[in-house]
Amino acid sequence: MSDTSSTEALVAELTLDEKAALTSGLDFWHTKPIERLGIPSIMVTDGPHGLRKQAEGGDHLGLGSSVPATCFPPAVGLGSSWDVELVERVGQALGVETAIENVGVLLGPGINIKRSPLCGRNFEYLSEDPIISGVIGAALVRGIQSQGVGTSLKHFAANNQESDRMRASSDIDPRPLREIYLRGFERVVTDAQPWTVMCSYNRINGVYASEDPWLLTRVLRDEWGFEGLVVSDWGAVNDRVVGLPAGLDLEMPSSGGRTDAQLVAAVEGGTLDESALDLAALRIVDLVRKTQEGAGRIAGPLDVDAHHALAREAAGRSIVLLRNDAVDGEPLLPLRRDANIAVIGAFAEKPRYQGAGSSMINPTRLDRALDEIRALAGGEVAYAAGFSIEKDAAADETARLRDEAVAAASAADVTVVFAGLPARLESEGYDRTDIDLPADQLALIDAVVAANPRTVVVLSNGGVVALPFAGRVPAIVEGWLLGQAGGGATADVLFGVVNPSGKLTETIPVRLSDTPAFLDFPGEFSHVRYGEGLFVGYRWYDARGLEVAFPFGYGLSYTTFAYADAAATVTADGDVEVRVAITNTGAVAGREVVQAYAALPGGTVQRPQRELKSFAVVELQPGETREAVLTVRRADLAYWDVRVDRWVVEGGRYLIEVGASSRDLRSSAAVEVDGDAVQVPLSRDSSLGEVMAHPIAGPVVQAAMAQMAGALEGAGDIFADQEAVQQMMASFPIGRIGMFGAEGISPEMIDGLIAMANGAA
Amino acid sequence: MSDTSSTEALVAELTLDEKAALTSGLDFWHTKPIERLGIPSIMVTDGPHGLRKQAEGGDHLGLGSSVPATCFPPAVGLGSSWDVELVERVGQALGVETAIENVGVLLGPGINIKRSPLCGRNFEYLSEDPIISGVIGAALVRGIQSQGVGTSLKHFAANNQESDRMRASSDIDPRPLREIYLRGFERVVTDAQPWTVMCSYNRINGVYASEDPWLLTRVLRDEWGFEGLVVSDWGAVNDRVVGLPAGLDLEMPSSGGRTDAQLVAAVEGGTLDESALDLAALRIVDLVRKTQEGAGRIAGPLDVDAHHALAREAAGRSIVLLRNDAVDGEPLLPLRRDANIAVIGAFAEKPRYQGAGSSMINPTRLDRALDEIRALAGGEVAYAAGFSIEKDAAADETARLRDEAVAAASAADVTVVFAGLPARLESEGYDRTDIDLPADQLALIDAVVAANPRTVVVLSNGGVVALPFAGRVPAIVEGWLLGQAGGGATADVLFGVVNPSGKLTETIPVRLSDTPAFLDFPGEFSHVRYGEGLFVGYRWYDARGLEVAFPFGYGLSYTTFAYADAAATVTADGDVEVRVAITNTGAVAGREVVQAYAALPGGTVQRPQRELKSFAVVELQPGETREAVLTVRRADLAYWDVRVDRWVVEGGRYLIEVGASSRDLRSSAAVEVDGDAVQVPLSRDSSLGEVMAHPIAGPVVQAAMAQMAGALEGAGDIFADQEAVQQMMASFPIGRIGMFGAEGISPEMIDGLIAMANGAA
Repeated sequence: MSDTSSTEALVAELTLDEKAALTSGLDFWHTKPIERLGIPSIMVTDGPHGLRKQAEGGDHLGLGSSVPATCFPPAVGLGSSWDVELVERVGQALGVETAIENVGVLLGPGINIKRSPLCGRNFEYLSEDPIISGVIGAALVRGIQSQGVGTSLKHFAANNQESDRMRASSDIDPRPLREIYLRGFERVVTDAQPWTVMCSYNRINGVYASEDPWLLTRVLRDEWGFEGLVVSDWGAVNDRVVGLPAGLDLEMPSSGGRTDAQLVAAVEGGTLDESALDLAALRIVDLVRKTQEGAGRIAGPLDVDAHHALAREAAGRSIVLLRNDAVDGEPLLPLRRDANIAVIGAFAEKPRYQGAGSSMINPTRLDRALDEIRALAGGEVAYAAGFSIEKDAAADETARLRDEAVAAASAADVTVVFAGLPARLESEGYDRTDIDLPADQLALIDAVVAANPRTVVVLSNGGVVALPFAGRVPAIVEGWLLGQAGGGATADVLFGVVNPSGKLTETIPVRLSDTPAFLDFPGEFSHVRYGEGLFVGYRWYDARGLEVAFPFGYGLSYTTFAYADAAATVTADGDVEVRVAITNTGAVAGREVVQAYAALPGGTVQRPQRELKSFAVVELQPGETREAVLTVRRADLAYWDVRVDRWVVEGGRYLIEVGASSRDLRSSAAVEVDGDAVQVPLSRDSSLGEVMAHPIAGPVVQAAMAQMAGALEGAGDIFADQEAVQQMMASFPIGRIGMFGAEGISPEMIDGLIAMANGAA
Repeated sequence: MSDTSSTEALVAELTLDEKAALTSGLDFWHTKPIERLGIPSIMVTDGPHGLRKQAEGGDHLGLGSSVPATCFPPAVGLGSSWDVELVERVGQALGVETAIENVGVLLGPGINIKRSPLCGRNFEYLSEDPIISGVIGAALVRGIQSQGVGTSLKHFAANNQESDRMRASSDIDPRPLREIYLRGFERVVTDAQPWTVMCSYNRINGVYASEDPWLLTRVLRDEWGFEGLVVSDWGAVNDRVVGLPAGLDLEMPSSGGRTDAQLVAAVEGGTLDESALDLAALRIVDLVRKTQEGAGRIAGPLDVDAHHALAREAAGRSIVLLRNDAVDGEPLLPLRRDANIAVIGAFAEKPRYQGAGSSMINPTRLDRALDEIRALAGGEVAYAAGFSIEKDAAADETARLRDEAVAAASAADVTVVFAGLPARLESEGYDRTDIDLPADQLALIDAVVAANPRTVVVLSNGGVVALPFAGRVPAIVEGWLLGQAGGGATADVLFGVVNPSGKLTETIPVRLSDTPAFLDFPGEFSHVRYGEGLFVGYRWYDARGLEVAFPFGYGLSYTTFAYADAAATVTADGDVEVRVAITNTGAVAGREVVQAYAALPGGTVQRPQRELKSFAVVELQPGETREAVLTVRRADLAYWDVRVDRWVVEGGRYLIEVGASSRDLRSSAAVEVDGDAVQVPLSRDSSLGEVMAHPIAGPVVQAAMAQMAGALEGAGDIFADQEAVQQMMASFPIGRIGMFGAEGISPEMIDGLIAMANGAA
């Protein structure tokens, strides 16, 4: 099993039954071996922010306890770093752990768009924006696969909710489907070639992802050049006889042989071409070959300490500092080492560090923020739970916990409240119905800040939460879910050991009813209309002119940065290179995530006000200036043109805005970009306006219009002016102008004109 | 031509060529005669707020000058009366004028939903709500047809913009299509049987309205029982061989015989069933018969004075008083007769009283507000134009006009500014791109109110305009477009001769970017996604929690009304009768439009927060109390159920809110309504939750779930709790449970269970 030709030779030796057998799982986590030909079984396991490999002797569904593995920050945290180099290192570490455990494929990354903050699985996804999803997703794939193991890019595609996820059809128009929901997948496939892609449970415009030849073959392979294997999400197969020729290579988990038999029967009955089965078998054998090549390269045991340290570094870069106002003349953070601190909130002791469901890792160890704060603090550190994470605490118990916390806060120099979402409120398998923190926590925060204005709130949450206290609490640290070393990383940031540099990859809205998908999430009767179209995330808030709590791309540092002299030029490749000078204008070293947004003012198609196109991290000492260089790919300027069903770059003068967030744009430049030629053939349906703009047909129709002018003179009586008449006429299909006194122009003459114009094009 | 059987006999005598000939126009305004059989040509003409009958010797397109006719308030005004009795009288007058001119069909009313304030033709439509559109539309049809002439209900359907109207596809999901865009048409057809329905230019979900068998036959005839004829909008025919069997009976205007020949060829070639042509011919002959029966019943000449008086009455009831704050201790309106008044604004002298396009009437006379104010005033009435209605006035001219106006305002006791949209800004044939009044008018209003705080603004506009001055101007009169007697009606309201009672049939938003269709109007490349779904108009602002300038249903009076003791009961017919006591608590007689909104808290399908279901007008002397009785039809409580493709009333406790506007709800009642039975058959796609709720299959599946419980125990390790596991499992299709340790349950057993459950239902 050493190269492609031998792979083909092997497949040629397989019987029909063997080929069918290969295309579905042996059990929950393994492919089937064909011992006769020396094709081994390989193991694939859940991830992706760690390895969830079922322990020996676990239940046969693989839902139970798994071997210990490093729990890195879930995607919601890691993505907030915007740090490709860091993410690639985390990916390498994940690859090492996968290889040590002799697992062939780690099932991730997940890069679905966060369409609504309500999606229960948002903590497993990267962003509301496809560029950062694609760039960070590709870095993860590169990192993991560098260790000789595979990835599974998921959940392909448009799987943006958990409600009714096994059936619901994501009903999406072509432009948002391409420009928002598929663009990140396209980026990862073309840049990093994941060994596998996992098709999602849902339907897209009525067709199951697992049976969609357009999605799995035309788009994924023919357009994007995907070379790997498509595996079903676990249980996503609806009808394998339909799915296999559509491009679904491997069904997981086992179907108990039932669907293999269906394939055999279909081939024998002539309804399924055996070549489709050959292709799937070839891809499976090829995947097995690749995993065998990597196998044994990395020996254990795992360096638990080193990976825990990396998890702490990654968690530190995942934290987003939302607010840090001055109290008594200086910013509340970082905390002074000698301060007497009241740590409040049960999450300080019982960290919420990852989300429920298939990505749940059994961590090698687990930091608690309370311990880590005590380890770094020089003063007293008191603790009060403040609230119960369990639901339905009795009213008197709630009051007692709050009173205790207020007493602790009153006695301290500074208070740090660890608030967040209890695990039951967000999970794979179901969605949230609101974005609120539990009421007792909100009441606690208000009580604590009233007792001690020097209060920091640290949040643990996988999905965005509303922050009604944002105007009253001077410092807010968004800690997302940070993995097993999050406690230490949080202490690092609180004391300034780490200068925070994370930025929001999703908008924090003021209220749920402002969110773009509010009125059609999660749909009903198995249909979800993506009515907001292109306007997902910040694109919506900008277009609608809505206030937000904290905008996309936002995040503070303990230092400040100045932006100057943005310049944009087109390179020989056609990309746009953006240069901007960044200066650390504060007193401590820091990292800044520099963002470039593009717009085409006056463009002919609908576009968001601005869209993220590139970003870079700059690390600067106090007073230091560096030039950040950001590449905006030409392909990322393209819109999906429904007339010709392909990507088109519209020519024109693009505005490139560079800034510290989507609403903090500091410097801008314009750049002229040549457009792609788009020739839409004329037809009888072409409007007079379109025909008049045509180089060949235009003059002819101008003449015909002159003939009609007399007939239209009377229109002056019922229209405001002749300009209005012309405007109305311009929208008339040329095939219907006979109505307006152009009887001399026969349909045949129009057809002739169209043929001539199209032929000359 | 006296009855149905002779109609059928006549059609039986027609040759194929004659039948084909009958199904398209003779010219712009006439059907073809078949002289051999005594079938005359009949005339149809534009309307609908007056008769636009081409004058003899006019141009052959019928775009030019028409015979004088009474110009009643266009729909935007008339609808604001919410007054069925008045509207029916206006309809009768329109019918009289139509009959006197020997016209067979008046082409109206137009009842399309005002989806966006930008639609250039909104002035021809009634509301953003289907109930008021349907009720007022039916009153017009009843009134007109009572005079032995026909109507043409238009534009059927989903024609909610002018941009690209000949091609654009209105892409609408089933519920909004039925519940918002078709519901008004359904009401008019079932209540008033218009003689004809006019199909629209646009496509719906990709299919031209003129070729859509679902729309023109299944919905219109099979479901609604339409008995009349379908005529194309002028030039709406795309392919008549497709359109005719779909249900398009009559093409207008003439195709010069071209499409008739296509029909003949299709019948002869076997691609078109001749019976379809028979049916269309029958409907045309039947329409001719009906018009002949009415012909000559009403002799001229027209009583111009009586109709002008009715036009003034209608205009008075169309006016909506938006604001009337106290200045110096008493409301600014009505004006004192002895006040010295500065009338400012060119519209006082050059009224804007109807909109451009096919509905433009040549009025019998035309009131000017300036003259009418002078006629009623006791004090001095000065006049200054204030601005030029023409575009691109020179800056110095603009300043001069403004200074002159400010001087007049400063010298007067009270100022009345006539502002509005110039005719060129809204018209059939194109849409607006903003909702702003011209900048010079806005600047003028600010300057005038600064010079004289006792300022009234009177608006003339067909589409809604933003009112940035609403907080600074104490009195605002929304005059819409009021027809030829609007000047007098405006004076009546200003002086209190008429106590205003109109209410908004559409929301006035704060800004364009708040409007529901803002991000997909008017679409691009001939597709318009109705992404806001059900949430059109007030349904959107309520659901999104948005502030509005003035809400749907709002309008002030010179008196005040109290609401008390709403009660709701289900009648023997199944309708809901709502009773509420209304008291005139002010000092003058007045009319109140009482509105009933319904909601189903906790309902299982998505619904707007409240929806208008019924309304009534109550006329009260000062101190008088009357009980208003409003009927909410059971059918209007139904939602369109996509699972069974029909209307379904969900059972439950409905909340009926009664009020003076959609945001001024004064009294409410709850009423228990029995639901319709809906039995959705089970299938392999049914979720476990659905199956468990089934009376037959439920217990069986409960047992199977118990079998799986052991296998799922391990899930406790990766899910928050067993409740979460159950919630996730409930969404699994039953056809896929084999994956979860239920291998003992074969697909055949599941199919058997489904068959048993469905059989028992």
